[in-house]
Amino acid sequence: MKLNILGCYSATPRTFTNPTAQVLEINNHHFLIDCGEGTQVQLRRHKIKFNRIKHVFISHLHGDHCFGLVGLISTMRLLTREADLHIYAPKGLKQVITLQMKLANSWTDYQLVFHELTSTESELIFEDDKVEVYTIPLDHRVYTNGFLFKEKEGERKLDMNAVLNADIDVAYYRKLKQGFDVLNNTGEIIKNETVTSAPEKPKSYAFCSDTAYKEDIVPLITGVDVLYHESTFLEQHAQLAPKTKHSTAKEAAKIASKAHVGKLILGHYSTRYDDLNVFKTEANAYFENVELADDGKVFEF
Amino acid sequence: MKLNILGCYSATPRTFTNPTAQVLEINNHHFLIDCGEGTQVQLRRHKIKFNRIKHVFISHLHGDHCFGLVGLISTMRLLTREADLHIYAPKGLKQVITLQMKLANSWTDYQLVFHELTSTESELIFEDDKVEVYTIPLDHRVYTNGFLFKEKEGERKLDMNAVLNADIDVAYYRKLKQGFDVLNNTGEIIKNETVTSAPEKPKSYAFCSDTAYKEDIVPLITGVDVLYHESTFLEQHAQLAPKTKHSTAKEAAKIASKAHVGKLILGHYSTRYDDLNVFKTEANAYFENVELADDGKVFEF
Repeated sequence: MKLNILGCYSATPRTFTNPTAQVLEINNHHFLIDCGEGTQVQLRRHKIKFNRIKHVFISHLHGDHCFGLVGLISTMRLLTREADLHIYAPKGLKQVITLQMKLANSWTDYQLVFHELTSTESELIFEDDKVEVYTIPLDHRVYTNGFLFKEKEGERKLDMNAVLNADIDVAYYRKLKQGFDVLNNTGEIIKNETVTSAPEKPKSYAFCSDTAYKEDIVPLITGVDVLYHESTFLEQHAQLAPKTKHSTAKEAAKIASKAHVGKLILGHYSTRYDDLNVFKTEANAYFENVELADDGKVFEF
Repeated sequence: MKLNILGCYSATPRTFTNPTAQVLEINNHHFLIDCGEGTQVQLRRHKIKFNRIKHVFISHLHGDHCFGLVGLISTMRLLTREADLHIYAPKGLKQVITLQMKLANSWTDYQLVFHELTSTESELIFEDDKVEVYTIPLDHRVYTNGFLFKEKEGERKLDMNAVLNADIDVAYYRKLKQGFDVLNNTGEIIKNETVTSAPEKPKSYAFCSDTAYKEDIVPLITGVDVLYHESTFLEQHAQLAPKTKHSTAKEAAKIASKAHVGKLILGHYSTRYDDLNVFKTEANAYFENVELADDGKVFEF
């Protein structure tokens, strides 16, 4: 898995920071998560090809998380895209984008497939043979979801020396990878675990922005390898957090600690703070493995 | 008058160019003309204060001319703007922006005043005591207007030596500036032109983008000091111009020549061209005073 942070600052625009957008590379997918204004330029800057993106996940309909999407859709049209584009977003975005395309008389030649989200319970919204994506209902000023990206359990790995020694026909390799015991060429039963090893532990990533402190999400994200959790504020402005339905670095760290995640990445910083290291220091008092998101930063895990 | 080019390239986004947006400073106004994605960041970059902008003119509803507006409106809200914002745009933009604000539950505290344009004839859309703005109906794939910004004739200038010598009471100065003859302190009629001089010639600027070659606009823009006319293509791609309803540099120059404008500024270049100087060379064969727009360039006239 590779997480490309295209933008990780809160709404007020500056010449040197970008609103929320990320690309998660996972099992050959390039999932775009949120799409603030300027995301298409950030994709260009970080050399992520537009046609690699087939699925877009929008957390909520505040502008700093979605105003860049219609421009990206329009550019994909100019680039004569043919592949479908799936958009998972709160109900309403389809209406806006359809209206904008109608007014511009610029319908896409490719298919826009909107998956409109309305549930306040976590739900499975994407699945293929290797990956699942679930919503994480959050607590913000408008209807908002985080997203949980989970690899499925992979196939067992063949120990080729053991397989050859056991004299197993190649026709049974597929069954071995699926965990079955098989017969060898001399009719002997070969126990699966003697010739295979366990698959790599499936990885998982949880994206939680924007949200007030919400302990309800802990069961959903327990044990994820990486949690991105917003930390708009520091504790010195803790009184603003519930009012604006955002979190502090301390609160993000408390969630990370309760959910026993592998790593916490902080982001969605208010532009009032010049020194981001204070976010890490504040969070470190409650959780050890903390990293700071920054525009253009890439995390591999 | 001062014209700040914030972006002057056609739709396909790049990391080093911007879609159309300009700020025209004229008689204490800061008129924003078109507002492609990223305009708010370009305003920051070029240190133009958001609260100086009270009037926005949108030529048409293609994304590279208007997708930045909702973000700018949202940021003005975050900055606790109180002044009205007037938006002159084709019918439809009000509906889009209202829907976006509704979905984000983010109504502005200041007043958004939409002036929806539908006429296919030139019309006066803004007027105060010093400036008038007219639409220039253009020929593009969707309903499109250029804009003509005209200073009104100013007041005559007092020749203070002559005024004092003529023994005119200060109470008559206003009348003198308005061009009237007046009585002096000894009851003598003083001819206006003996104590005043003509006002400076009012300046004018015409913005014409996007459009196919359209000779009909010539009477509307005849004699303007500066004409910005799109030149998406060079003559080598002349066959694309009528198809996409854009112009070539040659066509822009022919319009400038027929309208006897003072200066022609070219812009809205297709991103297929690396060397912009060819646009100037091509136009110069038909019109002498040609300049090339570029992002961040400022024209004073």
